[in-house]
Amino acid sequence: MSTILDQIRGPEDLKTLSIEQLALLAEEIRAFITQSVSQTGGHLASNLGVVDLTIAMHRAFDFRRDKLLWDVGHQCYAHKILTGRREAFSTLRQLDGLSGFPSPQESPYDQFYVGHAGTSIATAIGMALGAQHAGTDEKVVAFVGDASIVNGLSFEALNNIGLVRRQMLIVLNDNSMAIDATPGAMAGFLSRVRLSHTYEDIRRTTRSILEHLPLIGRTMEDALENFKRTLRMQISPSRLFESLNIPYFGPVDGHDIDSLIELFEAIGFLNRPAILHVYTRKGKGFTPADNNPTKFHSTGPFEINGDAASIKKGARSYTAAFGDALAEVAEKNEKIMAITAAMPDGTGLVKFREQFPDRFYDVGIAESVAVDIAAGMAKKGLRPFVCIYSTFLQRCIDQIFQEVALQNLPVVFCIDRAGLVGNDGPTHHGTMDIGFLRMLPNLVLLSPVCESEMRHALAFAAEASYPVAIRYPRDVIPNGCIEEICSTQPFVLGRSLTVREGEGDIVLAALGSLVAAAIEAADRLAGEGIDATVINARFAKPIDEGIVELWKQGKTIVTLEDHTLACGFGSAVQESVGQVRRFPERKETIRTGRICQLAVGDLFVKAGPRKWQLEAAGLSIQRIVETVRSLAAAQPRPYAPERIS
Amino acid sequence: MSTILDQIRGPEDLKTLSIEQLALLAEEIRAFITQSVSQTGGHLASNLGVVDLTIAMHRAFDFRRDKLLWDVGHQCYAHKILTGRREAFSTLRQLDGLSGFPSPQESPYDQFYVGHAGTSIATAIGMALGAQHAGTDEKVVAFVGDASIVNGLSFEALNNIGLVRRQMLIVLNDNSMAIDATPGAMAGFLSRVRLSHTYEDIRRTTRSILEHLPLIGRTMEDALENFKRTLRMQISPSRLFESLNIPYFGPVDGHDIDSLIELFEAIGFLNRPAILHVYTRKGKGFTPADNNPTKFHSTGPFEINGDAASIKKGARSYTAAFGDALAEVAEKNEKIMAITAAMPDGTGLVKFREQFPDRFYDVGIAESVAVDIAAGMAKKGLRPFVCIYSTFLQRCIDQIFQEVALQNLPVVFCIDRAGLVGNDGPTHHGTMDIGFLRMLPNLVLLSPVCESEMRHALAFAAEASYPVAIRYPRDVIPNGCIEEICSTQPFVLGRSLTVREGEGDIVLAALGSLVAAAIEAADRLAGEGIDATVINARFAKPIDEGIVELWKQGKTIVTLEDHTLACGFGSAVQESVGQVRRFPERKETIRTGRICQLAVGDLFVKAGPRKWQLEAAGLSIQRIVETVRSLAAAQPRPYAPERIS
Repeated sequence: MSTILDQIRGPEDLKTLSIEQLALLAEEIRAFITQSVSQTGGHLASNLGVVDLTIAMHRAFDFRRDKLLWDVGHQCYAHKILTGRREAFSTLRQLDGLSGFPSPQESPYDQFYVGHAGTSIATAIGMALGAQHAGTDEKVVAFVGDASIVNGLSFEALNNIGLVRRQMLIVLNDNSMAIDATPGAMAGFLSRVRLSHTYEDIRRTTRSILEHLPLIGRTMEDALENFKRTLRMQISPSRLFESLNIPYFGPVDGHDIDSLIELFEAIGFLNRPAILHVYTRKGKGFTPADNNPTKFHSTGPFEINGDAASIKKGARSYTAAFGDALAEVAEKNEKIMAITAAMPDGTGLVKFREQFPDRFYDVGIAESVAVDIAAGMAKKGLRPFVCIYSTFLQRCIDQIFQEVALQNLPVVFCIDRAGLVGNDGPTHHGTMDIGFLRMLPNLVLLSPVCESEMRHALAFAAEASYPVAIRYPRDVIPNGCIEEICSTQPFVLGRSLTVREGEGDIVLAALGSLVAAAIEAADRLAGEGIDATVINARFAKPIDEGIVELWKQGKTIVTLEDHTLACGFGSAVQESVGQVRRFPERKETIRTGRICQLAVGDLFVKAGPRKWQLEAAGLSIQRIVETVRSLAAAQPRPYAPERIS
Repeated sequence: MSTILDQIRGPEDLKTLSIEQLALLAEEIRAFITQSVSQTGGHLASNLGVVDLTIAMHRAFDFRRDKLLWDVGHQCYAHKILTGRREAFSTLRQLDGLSGFPSPQESPYDQFYVGHAGTSIATAIGMALGAQHAGTDEKVVAFVGDASIVNGLSFEALNNIGLVRRQMLIVLNDNSMAIDATPGAMAGFLSRVRLSHTYEDIRRTTRSILEHLPLIGRTMEDALENFKRTLRMQISPSRLFESLNIPYFGPVDGHDIDSLIELFEAIGFLNRPAILHVYTRKGKGFTPADNNPTKFHSTGPFEINGDAASIKKGARSYTAAFGDALAEVAEKNEKIMAITAAMPDGTGLVKFREQFPDRFYDVGIAESVAVDIAAGMAKKGLRPFVCIYSTFLQRCIDQIFQEVALQNLPVVFCIDRAGLVGNDGPTHHGTMDIGFLRMLPNLVLLSPVCESEMRHALAFAAEASYPVAIRYPRDVIPNGCIEEICSTQPFVLGRSLTVREGEGDIVLAALGSLVAAAIEAADRLAGEGIDATVINARFAKPIDEGIVELWKQGKTIVTLEDHTLACGFGSAVQESVGQVRRFPERKETIRTGRICQLAVGDLFVKAGPRKWQLEAAGLSIQRIVETVRSLAAAQPRPYAPERIS
């Protein structure tokens, strides 16, 4: 049965549809997205909420010429469906499939690979300036949600809108609810605005905007004045934006396709930047998502039973282990606080929030202030645990440097999604945190392997008088033999754990989640006569002197980490070994060992299953075995030792 | 002759002074600061502007118990003078002397070591939350300037003020002028407010605030309503802050000590956060600074001739060479744009701004948006050069990652103050940029030695189809023999330059500003029979394969860089060498070389002359000579080669 969606090959096909057909198309797209995401997993609720908006934008603009910048970009599914990528949707977020985020290599309709919040207005300014310099008249549209506009980068961009002296439209997609999940004053403000409006108010606003938009001869200022006079709104976001000199229009209904098209066409002709504020329902069109947009924000595959949905439960994750361990240690220490930047679920803080609501803080998508608030708390004797994904930690490096490391304050960083992250792809991998953090004096960096170690790690951090960072991946947390060895051993600063004693020259020094693979690899190699030692490094900083000792005994150290090779744990081991030569403290004769670093290469790793990504990086059990095999074969012949000093 | 200032041992001594005496004290302090800074150099204009405010704050509060957080902190001189550090002022910014910024190790009156903008409100929130949890009632005061409040971090903090349910005061020090140096909408807005006020308006505001501040029984909301009703201000910043739910008071006169004390005492008793907006004159009390606050913002020593000042001119700097070279390359390529984050002088862009005003952009203290705007421009075919100090680059790492490296856009980063920076001290060293940047795929990282190389570097970058980062220090740019070798050699991707061929086993592979020292060291060592090769590495990424070749020939490579040892250029060389072992491509026999990294250690280097800092880090000519001498003595005896595969 042919649907309207079947007829859409590209956005130009929207132009021949009537308003009724566009509304039907919207329903079909919502059903399509729901069905698709139930199979592949992905971001659901946000995408359902913006289908009407997306249709209206594509109808009013021509995004081959005009430029559409998505903020974060997880809400781009309808956009992709309309721009020739519908057939590929079953490959969403799969290896070599459609990206879950905008992707310039897929389509000229996509401008930037994105995944981190706050960038749309900023890059839109840059593109508008480019058009300004070239004297071209394409439209530039930035699409940003109410959660992202509170990020510091968004604000810096809003503050610089005045650089743009031609058209630029910011669509502020506001799906904040009365029981609002988005924290912060601005979100609260937008919520109060929303609550103070009736549906009739919003319809009247739309009429008023259209009536008062500047026509030839009338200035923007006059138009705005008239527009505001006709509105009798108690509270309006216009004050906020006008203080920043940005013409503000709205709020309007983000599901009224007819009015939206008219609005976009009219506002699109303004010759200076403006904001259009639209209201949408997150999860619209699929009742479970509509009722629980948080649960269906980002989801794995699920079953659709009529209108209900049951989400498959996964195995026990590092995140879950962290959440339980934090709640445990917090029970014994009332000074422990937990801070998240808009990701309480993802960072495992739901339990903590339930048990200690007064000690839980969510600052919104604002990682920088999360760190500084933690620093202020630590200064006052509290013990803050800041929980931020590795990739988002990149947004607050300067604050970790100045407010935490430089002051030597006991702030704990709980870094989830450290390492390769699977289907979220290159915008989300957490493969650079060791590099950033180990350059900072005073800061200790460690990585637990299993559940016992997670508890030990948090206990260690909670007692430390200096900053501590704990990294762990988005993965199932191992149990078994490692547990037995590790469970009895608290973390001691700079001390690794030998989990397998080997007689040979090969030493596998693994950090965190790679210890399990190292043990497996060593077992397989033993069958080939290679008897390797396996070390659970525990610390990426400081490096255990014991590892350097092994090198001085002539061993071959193979370092293993879920991180880039550049600047990682293995790199730190190389530096430590290099220091032996630089500061010869006594005349000694040592054998020269070797160091081989296994880590992620100098490339952006594409989206796909995490297992596949680890394999491709040489970090799977089999690949480790192969590497060690060839290293063992290349052992140096008997050689004269190297004399230091 | 005893002055009032002589009697002040600590802030408690202010309490016995009359208002007239306080005004005299302010004059004495201004004269003292001017005299002192003329000897030592430092930040002058900002400090002169806040003397009255500082006196009033210390009179109204007790900052042994109450907490004062300075934003950036360069304006803390009067504060230090009043808190027992006057005698030490001749040591300002000297080695082992008084810090030019707040310093907790100097005084319990200082909370955080600071130097980067945007942190005061954020850390104040953290400290207020600490007090909230502890149930203590000390006052928390954040002092922030109009240039810093536009930073994303400040905004994220303002957005989270609602977490604080007790007293917290933000003093917004507004010294923006009619001909405003601070760019951006918010600054423009504050300027318009300032221009719309007469002095009488401001006095009336002060009266009104004091009359309407909440008394027992009256709510904050009532008080604010009354306050606003009595004011007939055309435009007020109150709308902006009230949209964010922050009670706003002001603007008031920041030089009227009497009223300020009354205001602080009254506002200090509010039981929820509030902003007090004050106007000050930057440079007040010293006519040259008053007339040209930009010139006297941060100054070296100068001569005071009556009321005039003549600033000593220094030798030609890397910055000046960069500025000229950029203007040169921009003349030939009209797509070249220059972007700064509020530092046009410091980054050498004054000439560019004069010649190409339409191509120059200053986004205010907002490094993150500077990068994203550049990315948008590059997407549209322009060639943006983003000029940010190394230490401030830490504020936009995520944007460099996502908007630039991931998109592989040809944005050029011109990184001044890379390396040890001298008297600005540990908050300002640029010793981590190589570590951050070399983890990013696609991004090329290079460092010019001399003026010719600077021109070559910019020419290379302007033609590149990928992102390029160029780093150089705050130092005199060398000329002489290096010039002859380098001037004829354009930059070729990943290609170093051998500037001295030696017969021996020692190779000095130096990056950027350390090449000159390496050449001098090699000359001295030649006198001792050590004939070293000197390489101008040029690139920190990618590393020249030729350097790896030298290691395969058994050479001892000594890497030299103005950067931390962790994750630096030398670390990259180690990794490259390590890769030889990992990917044996053919059966070959190689000799094992050695790598010795000379770089800055894992510590925060204290303020002092840059020369001293380099010496302490082992990077002076003499220290290099000593290190090489001991390495040469420790050369291995004849040994069997290592066979790879």
